[in-house]
Amino acid sequence: MPLSMYQASVPTFVQILTALSGVLDKAQAFSAAKKCDPAVLLAARLAPNMFALTQQVQIACDFAKGATARLAGADVPSWPDHEKTFAELQQRIKKTTDFVQTFKPAQIDGSEERDVKLSVGGQPVTFKGQPYLIQFVLPNFYFHATTAYAILRHNGVELGKRDFVGAVPGMW
Amino acid sequence: MPLSMYQASVPTFVQILTALSGVLDKAQAFSAAKKCDPAVLLAARLAPNMFALTQQVQIACDFAKGATARLAGADVPSWPDHEKTFAELQQRIKKTTDFVQTFKPAQIDGSEERDVKLSVGGQPVTFKGQPYLIQFVLPNFYFHATTAYAILRHNGVELGKRDFVGAVPGMW
Repeated sequence: MPLSMYQASVPTFVQILTALSGVLDKAQAFSAAKKCDPAVLLAARLAPNMFALTQQVQIACDFAKGATARLAGADVPSWPDHEKTFAELQQRIKKTTDFVQTFKPAQIDGSEERDVKLSVGGQPVTFKGQPYLIQFVLPNFYFHATTAYAILRHNGVELGKRDFVGAVPGMW
Repeated sequence: MPLSMYQASVPTFVQILTALSGVLDKAQAFSAAKKCDPAVLLAARLAPNMFALTQQVQIACDFAKGATARLAGADVPSWPDHEKTFAELQQRIKKTTDFVQTFKPAQIDGSEERDVKLSVGGQPVTFKGQPYLIQFVLPNFYFHATTAYAILRHNGVELGKRDFVGAVPGMW
């Protein structure tokens, strides 16, 4: 079956966010084992003017949510960024993976030329669906998911790249 | 035009590696401005048992090179990891973007079901082309490209996410 807009989006979001959930589980266990306040890791960042772990997870979720809805021509639900604990971040991830999986391939396939309107840095931008997904969403999504992992790795959480990549059928 | 295996691979590799080249330019300029040995940044890492900047760039390049060749059913050239300077890493990136662009869409399109054989951690693995690209190559490629950026950001190089994402026509 030919590659489709659905196959290049929703399964990726689910794979990487599910893996990120596992990464956060390990981070929470690390906090407990080291007897450190989980809030320390949640507020950790790689540079003073870079987003902390909590925001990295929120933004990764938002790229998945926004891309899936926009490609399907649906409204993007607005979710407040109120997470303060690992458990709440896990709920955010779960809500996101549940949301993107409510869309069927037929709603997203064929969206290559669909107009996608969004605001980037306060400026209105109109994309076609394919460059929106391939050139904008995926780089941003992976950027924030990887940075979340990198923050935790830098803080000593025992993680390997397979924790980031997640389940790849036929491999691991 | 429907999304294709070529459109989901080669343009992404070129976009992100070209952006990475710009990131490395900024890192080299930072080294000069701070009067620090460039080798310090090239050997920087986020955790003691994580690859340093040089390897992150090499591996990102190798995922792009390997994926493009394998999807096209071509041999994967082996390039030694001998880079010791920013200039040599730039050559590696240039060699990679040149290589992947030698392939035409017709060589890669239709590779969804093509068998791709490779060795992962010393174990032989056979993928179909589509899961190989979407579930394995892209997560790994973005992982290493983002980690290279994150290492430099953590070391104080002035970078923003647009430096990572690179040129997105119609946006920036």
